[in-house]
Amino acid sequence: MSDAPTRTQLSEDQLPTHWVNLIPHLPEPPPPVLHPATQEPITPDDLAPLFPPALVAQEASDEPRIPIPEPVRDVYRLWRPTPLHRAHRLEQALGTPARIYYKYEGGSPAGSHKPNTAVAQAHANAEAGVQRLTTETGAGQWGSALAFACAQFGLTCEVWQVRASFEQKPYRGSMMRVFGGTVHPSPSDRTEAGRAVLAKEPDHPGSLGIAISEAVEAAAADDVTRYALGSVLNHVLLHQTVIGQEAQAQLAAIGEEPDVLIGCTGGGSNFAGLAFPFLADRLDRGGQGPRILAVEPAACPTLTRGRYAYDYGDTAGLTPLMKMHTLGHDFVPDAIHAGGLRYHGMSPLLSHVVELGLIEPRAYQQSDSFAAGLAFARTEGIVPAPEPTHALASAIEEATRCAETGEERVILTALCGHGHFDMAAYDAYLAGHLEDRGHDQTALEAALSALPAVDR
Amino acid sequence: MSDAPTRTQLSEDQLPTHWVNLIPHLPEPPPPVLHPATQEPITPDDLAPLFPPALVAQEASDEPRIPIPEPVRDVYRLWRPTPLHRAHRLEQALGTPARIYYKYEGGSPAGSHKPNTAVAQAHANAEAGVQRLTTETGAGQWGSALAFACAQFGLTCEVWQVRASFEQKPYRGSMMRVFGGTVHPSPSDRTEAGRAVLAKEPDHPGSLGIAISEAVEAAAADDVTRYALGSVLNHVLLHQTVIGQEAQAQLAAIGEEPDVLIGCTGGGSNFAGLAFPFLADRLDRGGQGPRILAVEPAACPTLTRGRYAYDYGDTAGLTPLMKMHTLGHDFVPDAIHAGGLRYHGMSPLLSHVVELGLIEPRAYQQSDSFAAGLAFARTEGIVPAPEPTHALASAIEEATRCAETGEERVILTALCGHGHFDMAAYDAYLAGHLEDRGHDQTALEAALSALPAVDR
Repeated sequence: MSDAPTRTQLSEDQLPTHWVNLIPHLPEPPPPVLHPATQEPITPDDLAPLFPPALVAQEASDEPRIPIPEPVRDVYRLWRPTPLHRAHRLEQALGTPARIYYKYEGGSPAGSHKPNTAVAQAHANAEAGVQRLTTETGAGQWGSALAFACAQFGLTCEVWQVRASFEQKPYRGSMMRVFGGTVHPSPSDRTEAGRAVLAKEPDHPGSLGIAISEAVEAAAADDVTRYALGSVLNHVLLHQTVIGQEAQAQLAAIGEEPDVLIGCTGGGSNFAGLAFPFLADRLDRGGQGPRILAVEPAACPTLTRGRYAYDYGDTAGLTPLMKMHTLGHDFVPDAIHAGGLRYHGMSPLLSHVVELGLIEPRAYQQSDSFAAGLAFARTEGIVPAPEPTHALASAIEEATRCAETGEERVILTALCGHGHFDMAAYDAYLAGHLEDRGHDQTALEAALSALPAVDR
Repeated sequence: MSDAPTRTQLSEDQLPTHWVNLIPHLPEPPPPVLHPATQEPITPDDLAPLFPPALVAQEASDEPRIPIPEPVRDVYRLWRPTPLHRAHRLEQALGTPARIYYKYEGGSPAGSHKPNTAVAQAHANAEAGVQRLTTETGAGQWGSALAFACAQFGLTCEVWQVRASFEQKPYRGSMMRVFGGTVHPSPSDRTEAGRAVLAKEPDHPGSLGIAISEAVEAAAADDVTRYALGSVLNHVLLHQTVIGQEAQAQLAAIGEEPDVLIGCTGGGSNFAGLAFPFLADRLDRGGQGPRILAVEPAACPTLTRGRYAYDYGDTAGLTPLMKMHTLGHDFVPDAIHAGGLRYHGMSPLLSHVVELGLIEPRAYQQSDSFAAGLAFARTEGIVPAPEPTHALASAIEEATRCAETGEERVILTALCGHGHFDMAAYDAYLAGHLEDRGHDQTALEAALSALPAVDR
């Protein structure tokens, strides 16, 4: 074991005071979001029925730093600042000279990074007199985060959960109820959008796109209800930048600078949360800073195989048109894919950054990802959610290369949540039921399965 | 919100270097443990077939401080020191002038305090050349902790889990497998003890006593296998004292002294982990220190309604005879009890301390406990395991009394684990299926269900 600390912590008074807005740092702004009817750029007025004024302002802001309201920081203090871990025991098992750091967000109320924005959104809505929030959720990380956040500000929370997940992961719904929320399987018979899908296919397993349609429709029903989105939009990515800012302070405290930064991407918010503060600094310093990798599942390869085009955020076409990497707004990943990150599109801002060549997308098979998750759990003692195992697979591959070349690279990754509600996926992997289509065991998976015990 | 920190953290170099042994601080030593055949006090040689030399020595030690081996501290660093939380938001919801602190152990690899001793036991066994550990587990906290610990030192881990829990909480078993362990439902057909129970009652739901019999029998099978117990014994309670020592340092850092300390008790190890360092100091200071309450479920009221007598630790009578508070070694709690802490006996050392009048036992109904758990989750953002909700019910009752009297008491409690694998119990509570037999809604439960949202 090296002398470097296993966990670098920050004190409560080092909690960030601002969110970091990447947009003013970019060489060119992202393409406008278009109104679905007129195909003209949307205005703040267009967003007002869905979102409260503070969030609409953040969505279009070009201020480089946006203050975090004190009531939001008060709630953040329940679990923030989060620790930065040095993966000593994983490094030892890999025999690598690389130094691997991970920022761990699993200690939050919902067990992931999602409450960082849920709390900010619930607060902004409560300030605006909103009484009820609706949203969609897939595996349930976001729904449970929003249910918790609503409880902090006296809001009612109503969640549409993708039916397949609602049935396969019932305990995420339990968590929403424990926090005081209500959850419906989607497609449901409570909305026109849901009823239309059920009419064609009564057993439809659901998708994030459909659940978004239902939640958006329900939010439009009255004046005291608004909609909350857990990823994709600029203001959501903005709220997550507390992660990267803390990581910068923590690395500075131990005298480290990352050579490569690796995050997983579904809608993009966890990735942006860690990466954007580093990218903003890199752009300001003429390019000096880490290489940045955005890792996605091969079963939902939005950045690596999607088209960069205007598309809807939801299946029914109720949202504005966003220019993004998309697999088509009616895309549903194979049922065999258990690794999360199933959204058909990608954050327009993150898509734009990829188009500018500022970050590199990568796709990983889920068998490699779960193998990485197991190796991580057995060495570091945290069972990761399936989503960040994609980033871990990439980080382990990078560290393994360092073991061959002898390079002492500093690798930084985001462990965005624990896998306590995803154990069935690990069971399926351990039972050999998660073979990727047309994919044999890779060299990476074989190497990981042969890892020795950590030490004696 | 007050200016006091929400979480008081310690740095890695403040990790305790020793475990605290209560025994030399007591006015009289606990009664001896007796050999089941001879009824004479057992010797270290009697324990050698079950436990490695280091643990046998700790079991009988009268040294006040026992050094923690460095490889054990290295593993502890993955999650220790753990934070001490000030329950600002719960206090605000209760309208109490009391200050409530909780030491949170849920950030550990298994999500509870159990790895504190699992790691120490796995290390001591590995040092002695042991290759395999067997154990029992109820809900699965202990089994998953030992599976993780065995992975750190290259040991094989085999777990017998009470069948009712094995079936109702399958994901704890998944976690054991993720960490590399093997888990069998108990009673099983792999041991004589298991087969004897199954012959009489093929559908027996199992009990901790039966699972202990199976694990002890399996450990006796060869020279490279030993048995590990997750609570009850002196060395297990000893290993948990890192909790209380850290809490002492954390309270000192913010200038607080507890007026009352409240922990939940099943076998006694979580309770002792927090309480014994404070009790040792109180005894050394002529009684100056906190009142200490040991809280147990009314459905398994070992301390409050059991006999203080010699009894076996297991159902088959394979263990030594221990003088303890017991409900009888074939006691099985009502199936309706979902709150954990189901062991028929109690740590002999903790029983002795109760007999000396040094701590006060209390029993709480599970409906009060789950109501406390809900109130806690919605304010503090952590879904507690059912076990510590018993202590939370008592802490909330104490704080509510302070709201009436205006007393500014300092309450310290142990939040020994999260409830991520216990959501079915919360679902049952929310659906009204956990009524206690002959128990109507109490004033406490009614008050908690009427709590307002935290703030606006």
